[in-house]
Amino acid sequence: MLPFKTLIVIDESSTTAVYRQVSDQLVVMISDGVLQPGTFLPSTREMASLLDKHRNTIVAAYEELITQDWIEPLPRIGIRVSLNLPLIKPRSFQEDGKNRTYSSPAKFNFKQNIPGPTANHFPLKRLSIVVNDGFPDADLAPFDSMFKEYRKLLQGTKLKKLMSLKDFGGTPALKDSTVNFLNNSRGLNISTDNLLITRGAQMAIYLAAAMILKPGDNVLVSDPSYYIADEVFKQMGANLIRIHVDQDGIDINGVENALKSFKISLLYVIPHHHHPTTVTMSQSRRTRLLELIRSYQLPVIEDDYDYDFHYNNSPVLPLASSDHDSNVLYIGSFTKLLAPSCRIGYLIGPANFIAQATNLKRLIDLRGDTLMEEALSAIINSGELDRHIKKSKKIYSERCDHTALSIQKELSHAVNFTKPHGGMALWLKFKPEYPLGDIISKAHSSGLLFTGAAYHEGADQKHNGIRFGFASLKETEMHNAIKILREITM
Amino acid sequence: MLPFKTLIVIDESSTTAVYRQVSDQLVVMISDGVLQPGTFLPSTREMASLLDKHRNTIVAAYEELITQDWIEPLPRIGIRVSLNLPLIKPRSFQEDGKNRTYSSPAKFNFKQNIPGPTANHFPLKRLSIVVNDGFPDADLAPFDSMFKEYRKLLQGTKLKKLMSLKDFGGTPALKDSTVNFLNNSRGLNISTDNLLITRGAQMAIYLAAAMILKPGDNVLVSDPSYYIADEVFKQMGANLIRIHVDQDGIDINGVENALKSFKISLLYVIPHHHHPTTVTMSQSRRTRLLELIRSYQLPVIEDDYDYDFHYNNSPVLPLASSDHDSNVLYIGSFTKLLAPSCRIGYLIGPANFIAQATNLKRLIDLRGDTLMEEALSAIINSGELDRHIKKSKKIYSERCDHTALSIQKELSHAVNFTKPHGGMALWLKFKPEYPLGDIISKAHSSGLLFTGAAYHEGADQKHNGIRFGFASLKETEMHNAIKILREITM
Repeated sequence: MLPFKTLIVIDESSTTAVYRQVSDQLVVMISDGVLQPGTFLPSTREMASLLDKHRNTIVAAYEELITQDWIEPLPRIGIRVSLNLPLIKPRSFQEDGKNRTYSSPAKFNFKQNIPGPTANHFPLKRLSIVVNDGFPDADLAPFDSMFKEYRKLLQGTKLKKLMSLKDFGGTPALKDSTVNFLNNSRGLNISTDNLLITRGAQMAIYLAAAMILKPGDNVLVSDPSYYIADEVFKQMGANLIRIHVDQDGIDINGVENALKSFKISLLYVIPHHHHPTTVTMSQSRRTRLLELIRSYQLPVIEDDYDYDFHYNNSPVLPLASSDHDSNVLYIGSFTKLLAPSCRIGYLIGPANFIAQATNLKRLIDLRGDTLMEEALSAIINSGELDRHIKKSKKIYSERCDHTALSIQKELSHAVNFTKPHGGMALWLKFKPEYPLGDIISKAHSSGLLFTGAAYHEGADQKHNGIRFGFASLKETEMHNAIKILREITM
Repeated sequence: MLPFKTLIVIDESSTTAVYRQVSDQLVVMISDGVLQPGTFLPSTREMASLLDKHRNTIVAAYEELITQDWIEPLPRIGIRVSLNLPLIKPRSFQEDGKNRTYSSPAKFNFKQNIPGPTANHFPLKRLSIVVNDGFPDADLAPFDSMFKEYRKLLQGTKLKKLMSLKDFGGTPALKDSTVNFLNNSRGLNISTDNLLITRGAQMAIYLAAAMILKPGDNVLVSDPSYYIADEVFKQMGANLIRIHVDQDGIDINGVENALKSFKISLLYVIPHHHHPTTVTMSQSRRTRLLELIRSYQLPVIEDDYDYDFHYNNSPVLPLASSDHDSNVLYIGSFTKLLAPSCRIGYLIGPANFIAQATNLKRLIDLRGDTLMEEALSAIINSGELDRHIKKSKKIYSERCDHTALSIQKELSHAVNFTKPHGGMALWLKFKPEYPLGDIISKAHSSGLLFTGAAYHEGADQKHNGIRFGFASLKETEMHNAIKILREITM
């Protein structure tokens, strides 16, 4: 409710009747847009008490306003500001600009041209199927266990104490659980000093880039690469140098040539199920890359968002678990393990780097979501996360097989793809005679919306490819999506 | 589980027996720290299947390792890497540095000296009472309703569709609810184009500062001011110019003089229950400040974290609801309304500024917590948030009265304070003969931990003040805290 006591000032010495002073000031508030059409006013009794006036005064003021059509009584509900105001039409608020506090654009200096998402003008209601970038299936996520933990935490005093700690880089329990989880699953050899808990992998990429890059720095990325990471580096003022990717991962000769030719401040790699192409970097390239990292003392962001989902082969250990002389920053997330709405990720690095990154994270986000962090720690420690990963892996592996088979059968005239060793998406490269822009828009007309990363505009035209996230698609959805793609490409 | 299939390579043509090849390679993994003490190995049957060898081969390999004390069988549980490894003591991993991937500090360039929290070396277990900076009481928060919404959302397909939208600035439902909530409670006149949903007010401050400030810019802040905002501005490379605060808020003559003398890029103000001093800016100063904002076209961050909790007086409308010619960015949060773990805040500004700020937020945090945003929207729309605010306000108002009375009675020899018009904390200024550093450490020895903002070091020595958050303190806790303070000051 508005602070009417402050807003309505009564001058007892005025020649204007008190009820008219009240009604006049309410008219000003309504015509200024402070009281908007549809807003309910306090009852006459409440308003009388707020203003410390007799109730009859307020009744008279309200009656005046009702007569003038400024307010309207709704029997048994209350009195509201009229939806159709006399004289002033809502539109005019915007046109003359006088009453809208933000009617004009900001004229002060601020950063412009920050890259944003391409617009998505597709009304979702009409659509039958959404194919995403490769999200986990939230139906599988152990939300019940997490909610049970939430309740437990809210009943005790533990949460209150946790909020009093000055651990801005994640709750102590989650840091311990994550260190164990990563050391056991990835052969890392880290302690909590090497770990910062973030909101999803995206914040970890942003923090690492903000810590390392200055305007004009050169960053090596693959061609193509995860486009939102590209945008982060550009936002820091960096130049991107793109290195070709083939079926064995990023081209190491290309990396070496770039290192010989330019001063390189950062390399961004995704060795497991590279985004968007889904290829896994071969063991021999990893070995060579590690040699380059050590000899050039090259800072690296290793984005390993997809490590836990490998189907046919065992995963290869991350670069971060080999000898990199403290140059590899390792990034991953629990989001892909649980559900897109559970955004908890991590940044691993040398202790001196992590200490400063933790300070920067505090300036952006204070302490994160303590409740979710504690609940996640509990399901890691109880073994539920491992069980969940096993179960999901089985289901996603089947979905991967079915989707690949079905695309092979129905779409081989139009797309090339290689079934990945793991992950949650296929990388569909449409043949040049099927320009992806057309495919996306025709698919949409047929009720299929792609929200996955698409690479087909400008310099990306040569890829003509899109991510087809299968992990969250039920079998019928997958078949219907492919059926639509077949129809529009035949 | 580690990818043993990849890690253990068997050479069938070697003269070394296969079981010894397996055991030798496991020894290397253990001594390299890839397999850490206490880690469970796969059962012989599982390992045999992983490596595609006969089970007897693995039994022989394991027996070899047991004999050498590398691994130990736990009857009916499994086989784990020995806690006390032969030859190599865990400590040596760190000392020679060879096996720890992050044993040396990062040598590449990265931002240093990012301000961090002052260490809090106080073991919480020993403490009986924690007095915070002014947090809401999580016991009052409508978590049950929020969890009910979580479940509802997880059962339907709505969440999946929401995750497919490209609305990175908050879910459409929460944006609508927040616009209504703010227009109705604060007399704003905004649309969703003026709103960005963030993680708490902290992210809103960071985003606004990152958008406006360049290294060397001058920022006006109060003396004292919210210290983490100070740190954000410093992190952007800005110079802080401090303006005195008295019982009517920030000194407007000081602001005007600074505007006359320097190029000012930003003013940061907290008109309601200023942090840390809790004073509310007077109406006449607001009017003068708005004149200055318009005539100097001065960009302003108005941090209104505490608007909804006013006890004795009505709140004064924010600067953002008056004519500021699109120069005031308005920041607030639902965190203070609900619980410290529900971190949802907002940034309000001109549409062109908000569009770019939304892009920047996407690079840092993608889409936020969709589940929590939808649940919050539901409890705003159902009226539950308003009921919750009313209920909390009553309780906090009583706690404010009791705490103020009690401090007046027990501590007036040592502290000065003015009971605030609202908010969740008192600003206790200790008299010079009670240096705050001593008070804090003596209090801690007696089982009372202050986690609220303390201003007593360096240039802040003149304040010698600390925030005493009363809103989350039960009556006994409050009395005990004050009793301890009395004892150590008598």
